[in-house]
Amino acid sequence: MPRPKPFIREQRLNTGVYMSNPIKMVAEMYPWVPFQKLLGIKIESYDDDYAEISIPFREELAGTPNVYHGGVIASLIDLTGALSAWSGHDDKKGMRASTVSLNVQYLSGAKGEGIVAKSRAVKRGKELVFCSIEVFSVTSNRLIAKGDIVYRIV
Amino acid sequence: MPRPKPFIREQRLNTGVYMSNPIKMVAEMYPWVPFQKLLGIKIESYDDDYAEISIPFREELAGTPNVYHGGVIASLIDLTGALSAWSGHDDKKGMRASTVSLNVQYLSGAKGEGIVAKSRAVKRGKELVFCSIEVFSVTSNRLIAKGDIVYRIV
Amino acid sequence: MPRPKPFIREQRLNTGVYMSNPIKMVAEMYPWVPFQKLLGIKIESYDDDYAEISIPFREELAGTPNVYHGGVIASLIDLTGALSAWSGHDDKKGMRASTVSLNVQYLSGAKGEGIVAKSRAVKRGKELVFCSIEVFSVTSNRLIAKGDIVYRIV
Amino acid sequence: MPRPKPFIREQRLNTGVYMSNPIKMVAEMYPWVPFQKLLGIKIESYDDDYAEISIPFREELAGTPNVYHGGVIASLIDLTGALSAWSGHDDKKGMRASTVSLNVQYLSGAKGEGIVAKSRAVKRGKELVFCSIEVFSVTSNRLIAKGDIVYRIV
Repeated sequence: MPRPKPFIREQRLNTGVYMSNPIKMVAEMYPWVPFQKLLGIKIESYDDDYAEISIPFREELAGTPNVYHGGVIASLIDLTGALSAWSGHDDKKGMRASTVSLNVQYLSGAKGEGIVAKSRAVKRGKELVFCSIEVFSVTSNRLIAKGDIVYRIV
Repeated sequence: MPRPKPFIREQRLNTGVYMSNPIKMVAEMYPWVPFQKLLGIKIESYDDDYAEISIPFREELAGTPNVYHGGVIASLIDLTGALSAWSGHDDKKGMRASTVSLNVQYLSGAKGEGIVAKSRAVKRGKELVFCSIEVFSVTSNRLIAKGDIVYRIV
Repeated sequence: MPRPKPFIREQRLNTGVYMSNPIKMVAEMYPWVPFQKLLGIKIESYDDDYAEISIPFREELAGTPNVYHGGVIASLIDLTGALSAWSGHDDKKGMRASTVSLNVQYLSGAKGEGIVAKSRAVKRGKELVFCSIEVFSVTSNRLIAKGDIVYRIV
Repeated sequence: MPRPKPFIREQRLNTGVYMSNPIKMVAEMYPWVPFQKLLGIKIESYDDDYAEISIPFREELAGTPNVYHGGVIASLIDLTGALSAWSGHDDKKGMRASTVSLNVQYLSGAKGEGIVAKSRAVKRGKELVFCSIEVFSVTSNRLIAKGDIVYRIV
């Protein structure tokens, strides 16, 4: 549910460098959003309607020894979905955003290895963006969770 | 998705104190599960089929200034639902558990105040437990999110 | 996903009787919406943010002998949620509507008896209404499913 | 939520023809399940972990003139997901089944044309099968909804 507008506004006061591309700025600031920083996210790539974000494994993120907590996976699904909604968004339509709803299915556990989420925005309405997200283990490359979000940008 | 079994086993090696009540032990260990410690959860209460867990506000958990990241709320829904499934569970039926699926609807934002989740396990099948969760802001006492999980204990 | 506007418009051509209360008209027309007629729905009651709708048992609605098909239950959750969103809606804000998303958890089966859904609209945003729905068996009065919808009226 | 076992058992009493392939029998009986007959489903194809089922447009299935009711789409997602779970299932592991949970996102409306759902079972656990489903309009070939189910066969 990151709503980057305040960061954008703040940034505008300090520098003019991002003003020509607010979407790129959202992506560049993404790892600085406090909870996203706490998770240690790494943006792998993003393109129109697409985003790919990873989290290296740290024991602090575990629910059981060596296995990510379900909340970490849900968070990664939420924030990767959100970035795929931002990517390809026309900033003239507004820059205030939040997650409307989130669904996650947990398929298997990733043990002691990083995870990466890949999200695609499959439909853009006037305000709502529908995103489908899959989460893979980085080393063993197994599908460990899937989900979707409805994201709203106004 | 916490699967407390390993913690239980470990504990048994050290002390015998919890062996007579494994469910109570799950609850007492809950704030020590690494990611739950990172979130700073506080168990308010639990009883058969019920659990109530809060997270005091910290800027590290924000998605925008002063507002919880959606991932924090999803995590709280997951882990509070799980504790309500544990509460009232018959440990002789097994102690291995994981979340099957999670749904969250985001209703409004909590600004700079703590949140508390209240979960009820509304149905216990042979392996699956269905839990309904509501999240409130602590000071203004508004409903800020609701969700449900399907939890599996075997 | 019923979008009653066309029915409303049509009705206006014929009579003026409903013009003063479009929401009441939506409710009165509800059993005439073709698929809702096929299901044989019966509106039990509705009030601000609330609706209660039943379906008497018919073998045609079964998935296995004597048990409702999951699709019937999902449909009842959708359409009861929608009516609770209409109830209490300010018609001046618009009368075009559709379901954004639907979640259902199946808890137990109703055998050869009617079902009734009770829905509450728990949050109204500018366009989106969030509804929580429970489905009970009519005779044995057991909770057989629960769900929620996000509904949009513009 | 179709639970075809009773049909299977009944069939066994009458003929021996299906006994060597119970999964094929589930598929062949699928259009006869009462509510699925009422919807007028047509099985397009199925293969291991995959199923494709269509519903030709009929005004009886409408929520607004010429547009499918959301309940029809939810039903199609449920029953197509279920068939993809059956396809590839080892019948020796059991033949009793029901839907655990269902999620649907409504992306756009199909106007006066048939719809077809395509489902893939992406994960088989010991009892639970996770299926992802997309629904397309047949003529205009647009993605009109997506969803997932958790299905249980024991």
